[in-house]
Amino acid sequence: MNTIAHELNDRLEGSTAYRLLSDFGKRFYFPKGIVAQSAEAKQKAHRFNATVGMATKGPVPMYLKGIKDLVPGIEEQEIFPYAPTPGVPELRKLWRSEMDRKNPSLKGKNTSLPLVTSGLTHGISVVSDLFLDEGDSIVVPDMFWGNYRLIFEGRNKAKILSFPFFNDEGGLHVSALKDTLESVEGDTVALILNFPNNPTGYSPTEREADQIVAVLKSLADEGKKVLCITDDAYFGLFYEKGTCTESLFARLADLHENIFAVKVDGATKEEFAWGFRIGFITYAGHGMSGDQYEALEKKTMGAIRSSISNSSKIAQSLLLRGMKEPGYLDQKQEAFSILEARYRKVRELVGRFPSDAPLQPLPFNSGYFMTFVYKGNSEKLRLHLLDKYGVGTISIQEKYLRIAYSSVEIENLEELYQTILKAAGEVL
Amino acid sequence: MNTIAHELNDRLEGSTAYRLLSDFGKRFYFPKGIVAQSAEAKQKAHRFNATVGMATKGPVPMYLKGIKDLVPGIEEQEIFPYAPTPGVPELRKLWRSEMDRKNPSLKGKNTSLPLVTSGLTHGISVVSDLFLDEGDSIVVPDMFWGNYRLIFEGRNKAKILSFPFFNDEGGLHVSALKDTLESVEGDTVALILNFPNNPTGYSPTEREADQIVAVLKSLADEGKKVLCITDDAYFGLFYEKGTCTESLFARLADLHENIFAVKVDGATKEEFAWGFRIGFITYAGHGMSGDQYEALEKKTMGAIRSSISNSSKIAQSLLLRGMKEPGYLDQKQEAFSILEARYRKVRELVGRFPSDAPLQPLPFNSGYFMTFVYKGNSEKLRLHLLDKYGVGTISIQEKYLRIAYSSVEIENLEELYQTILKAAGEVL
Repeated sequence: MNTIAHELNDRLEGSTAYRLLSDFGKRFYFPKGIVAQSAEAKQKAHRFNATVGMATKGPVPMYLKGIKDLVPGIEEQEIFPYAPTPGVPELRKLWRSEMDRKNPSLKGKNTSLPLVTSGLTHGISVVSDLFLDEGDSIVVPDMFWGNYRLIFEGRNKAKILSFPFFNDEGGLHVSALKDTLESVEGDTVALILNFPNNPTGYSPTEREADQIVAVLKSLADEGKKVLCITDDAYFGLFYEKGTCTESLFARLADLHENIFAVKVDGATKEEFAWGFRIGFITYAGHGMSGDQYEALEKKTMGAIRSSISNSSKIAQSLLLRGMKEPGYLDQKQEAFSILEARYRKVRELVGRFPSDAPLQPLPFNSGYFMTFVYKGNSEKLRLHLLDKYGVGTISIQEKYLRIAYSSVEIENLEELYQTILKAAGEVL
Repeated sequence: MNTIAHELNDRLEGSTAYRLLSDFGKRFYFPKGIVAQSAEAKQKAHRFNATVGMATKGPVPMYLKGIKDLVPGIEEQEIFPYAPTPGVPELRKLWRSEMDRKNPSLKGKNTSLPLVTSGLTHGISVVSDLFLDEGDSIVVPDMFWGNYRLIFEGRNKAKILSFPFFNDEGGLHVSALKDTLESVEGDTVALILNFPNNPTGYSPTEREADQIVAVLKSLADEGKKVLCITDDAYFGLFYEKGTCTESLFARLADLHENIFAVKVDGATKEEFAWGFRIGFITYAGHGMSGDQYEALEKKTMGAIRSSISNSSKIAQSLLLRGMKEPGYLDQKQEAFSILEARYRKVRELVGRFPSDAPLQPLPFNSGYFMTFVYKGNSEKLRLHLLDKYGVGTISIQEKYLRIAYSSVEIENLEELYQTILKAAGEVL
């Protein structure tokens, strides 16, 4: 094994995070190569810096004027150079302090600084590389984002172990989660929870969140090492009272020495910047030292470096500027209100569906989506909606139909839902 | 195996590309999930499109005004939405036609369309996933970019098999390349060539390029299936007459049915946009059909989707706009001239080094860098330069010192090189 990897492992030893690392995670490191030497030079090379593979003109990077002219609002230095491997420091700190604002119970708890990834997918993929070995199980609700399969199973050859997301009462099936976690053999267990959920648009109630936390704690009490990844892509879009409005990460961060929590989130949905490709990975483990967080950060930087080198500088700069604007929170609130109004309208519309309609909504209370269970073949329904009505929806497992009401104007929702109901009858 | 992967393999069967796929490459596919269904809806959903996980307001994405105001030169649609998995179609076509302009002998040869990746590293990493299995050898010159080790060996557990880059006459060591390729057992062989080379700044002469091509052809004639990756990161920065100014990809594209050529390049250096994170993968194999390119493209899209989902939209939009500007080629030429002048100055300066100096330059004729061989310990020299003189350089294998003259003004080069020479004497 590489000597730097070995040294990082020594620093991590004894932590739950270390016990959970995959073979990839154990052997990974951040080399003392060009990037590390350039970072050192950035601090010390006050005379000439001939380290980095960029072309500069005086203190600024060279660039094509035709591009710079389109972005007059920020400096060349914010657009063209490489960003540091783990992200722009100021953005990382701001994202962490925003995390406290959004999750008051996280305040004062020990976590790593967020590391910037090229979007949430990249964040999940990096975490999967670092923590999942071939054949490992990862527990996932049976309603999940399809890319999980390609990442966990396709890329890392882990096995998705799913549990029914909803119970018969239309709530979260916490006991199924518990049973499934307990069915995993060995002394470690991994799970990923995505709230608000894609595709259903469901988030746990406060009570359900308590129950999930209790399940994980009891596993930890029994001596299991628990890796809990929270995929908080749609965080913040909570529309109902009684919904848990904090990330489970905040609850798990210092819950138990046998629990290691990983938060993957990003600007993609939270800041309405889908094409920016800016995500974050944040780690938290009860009793983890600063030195251990740093060692894990170095391993993560190795995974980032070897997959994408670093994330978009211009996107990080624009995001940072946008989040520091005085009007930032108002702008977010305005966007939230529009989505919330669409949500209320959708609730009203599906509330009017006949009780024997061939389409019945799954529980939803948050995010971008809601999902119907269809009595017929939902792929046929999707094609029919597309071909006959010019209406685009997503079919899942030939049984479910996902509607992204986030991308339809409120005044069109009634026609949309009536069309879907009508088409559902035609295809049956 | 997944049925879509199976179907793609059937389409590829018989091609050299198929024979070269790794286990990962064989099992990968692009799912008929959300992204594929959304792409279909984009064509057909003329009434409502409720497929994609974005929030829109009328026809445009929602966004934070504070961010948009900084980028007045392009439309919301060019900034905030997701880009397609393989990249913005117009940019892919433009990049391909630019490839013909830069490599006249490529014109009319059959290749895939370039697929957009999140920078060159991501391109190399995706190709490594698709074509290198654990234990496979990949032939690399002994002077190589350090990240190759982290990608090929760290990530994919392949083995780097290196050969001496230079012969005693100060030219490319083509016979060592040949011997090393021939030493690889089995019926396939993989290599990566990076010209202009990082760290040495060397590109082959026309004659050497002919020799490399002849070596690969003779291997192919003997029945070996050859994967040749050209890492063209620094393409175009050729400063001497007699240097081969085309990518080897152009020569290999249709050379032999047993040769499969993969070009990885990008905007990073070619368009002076390091922090944009836009790279490209382009495939070429003699006799490959359009259907086979498409099947391979789908597999590549699966690798992209599962690692980063898609690449930066704003970066692709800015790049496209910049490249379509009337002044584009003039702007590039201007930047080239500045770098060329620095190169000439560096040549002059190292030409004046005493023949018994403890630092001797390796051959260089292109790119951003030149590299010294040092008689002492180059890591000590690097630290000395940094601490005593505030001069940042890169040490490699404690033997070499890389100088990025691309990032030092021409009027400072004399002082830089004198300082380096002086420090080299002090550390010995």
